[in-house]
Amino acid sequence: MRSEQKRVVIVGSGNVATSVALGLREECELVQVYSRHIENAQALASKVGCADATDDLRRLVADADVYMVSVTDDAIGEVVASVPDNGALWLHTSGSVPVSALAGARQRCGVMWPMQSFSKSMPVSMADVHVFVEGNNEATTAQVAEFAGMLSRNVTVADSAKRKRLHVASVFACNFANHMWTLAAEVLEESGLSFDALLPLIRTTVEKLEHLRPLESQTGPAARGDEKVMRGHMELLTGDKREIYAMLSRSIRESQRKTEDNGKNRV
Amino acid sequence: MRSEQKRVVIVGSGNVATSVALGLREECELVQVYSRHIENAQALASKVGCADATDDLRRLVADADVYMVSVTDDAIGEVVASVPDNGALWLHTSGSVPVSALAGARQRCGVMWPMQSFSKSMPVSMADVHVFVEGNNEATTAQVAEFAGMLSRNVTVADSAKRKRLHVASVFACNFANHMWTLAAEVLEESGLSFDALLPLIRTTVEKLEHLRPLESQTGPAARGDEKVMRGHMELLTGDKREIYAMLSRSIRESQRKTEDNGKNRV
Repeated sequence: MRSEQKRVVIVGSGNVATSVALGLREECELVQVYSRHIENAQALASKVGCADATDDLRRLVADADVYMVSVTDDAIGEVVASVPDNGALWLHTSGSVPVSALAGARQRCGVMWPMQSFSKSMPVSMADVHVFVEGNNEATTAQVAEFAGMLSRNVTVADSAKRKRLHVASVFACNFANHMWTLAAEVLEESGLSFDALLPLIRTTVEKLEHLRPLESQTGPAARGDEKVMRGHMELLTGDKREIYAMLSRSIRESQRKTEDNGKNRV
Repeated sequence: MRSEQKRVVIVGSGNVATSVALGLREECELVQVYSRHIENAQALASKVGCADATDDLRRLVADADVYMVSVTDDAIGEVVASVPDNGALWLHTSGSVPVSALAGARQRCGVMWPMQSFSKSMPVSMADVHVFVEGNNEATTAQVAEFAGMLSRNVTVADSAKRKRLHVASVFACNFANHMWTLAAEVLEESGLSFDALLPLIRTTVEKLEHLRPLESQTGPAARGDEKVMRGHMELLTGDKREIYAMLSRSIRESQRKTEDNGKNRV
């Protein structure tokens, strides 16, 4: 342990708290883990080699340098309201909660949002995660950015409005794309086919993003306006999946049409 | 050139024809490339070291062993109707056209469908592509499977009904997922943010598929039923994107609910 190491308290024990704690444990002194459920606090504390676990906000260590509040969006306000300001740096890790949610109750506060989809069963190395930071003033923003730099190579300052937009975009890019895979798996499972057959296709689709914009690499019946194939597919689908097929095919046509129009204007 | 090499004619010069020809050129003798447009036929022929290019179906080499018909779905029938049967193995490469489209006019015919999303600007190595094959009878099916084995390590026999289901699934898994990235890019571009910020997130989302079923790795506001965040996101969106956000969020909830119900039933 180096003497200049920051003393950090982890408030929360969920997927983000776990990844952040794992990412910080080499760089900081993790002095305490808090969770509403003592078993969860103890489990995370032992995982990251931290001696103190608690389920009581009144027992929170008072003299740490940084408090990482990684709890559900609604619980952030409750935590901050239950603990008096101690002048330390208080950070939350939510993409959708503005910094103002802390600023009323804390002199030095900010947001350190790792834009990543975390699952407990699949720990993510924080070093490559894009982290967006914001502080309640310029000096704090610089401190948050420096602290986040211990966790990740990719740190960008982004205010709450930009973060909200990034969050919406990540819902499309990650949550909705993943749901497309769930629907594909359902289509296959109905006739005993394995989802694994799609993995090479999915990998290539993603690799293309390294070289082409997604609009440019769009393929398939909707992109080429193949009504006959689309009708055949719709006949196979029912309920939600049928509606989604129709709506997304229309939306793909619309995006392609906009590009073609732009192309024409350019010529 | 080995004496036992199959003599192959490539009919078509699009993305699939190009990838198939590139994949076969080491293993077969490519004797001719046909395209409706002679420049396209010549370009592909020269790319794969084939001496003969034509834009005239009446000039098609008559004594090849295999004819790979990689043209648009609607043109497959036209090609076959314009050329008399010569007893060779005639294959099309479409996921959505049944083998019966050839069987009327050919004694030995089949389908060799590489389930992959091809773009000319991004050639795909066929060796890892999953190829689904079918013949008009058992003996031909075995020949198609053997021929496809020269192209890919992953060859599976699948009849037209299974292929259609795989095709629908691949539209969800690849075309629709890619469109989610297009919409994400639009959301970011509206405020000058770069799509590249999402790439690490997208990569992790895909890596999870190696270990978890997509339903199990689903995260985000819809999966956890976070109405407040979803309302906030909807306020930012307009038109198509707003509708799509609402519909996919409902569909994610529905998929999660079904799993939870199953979970309960299991307990």
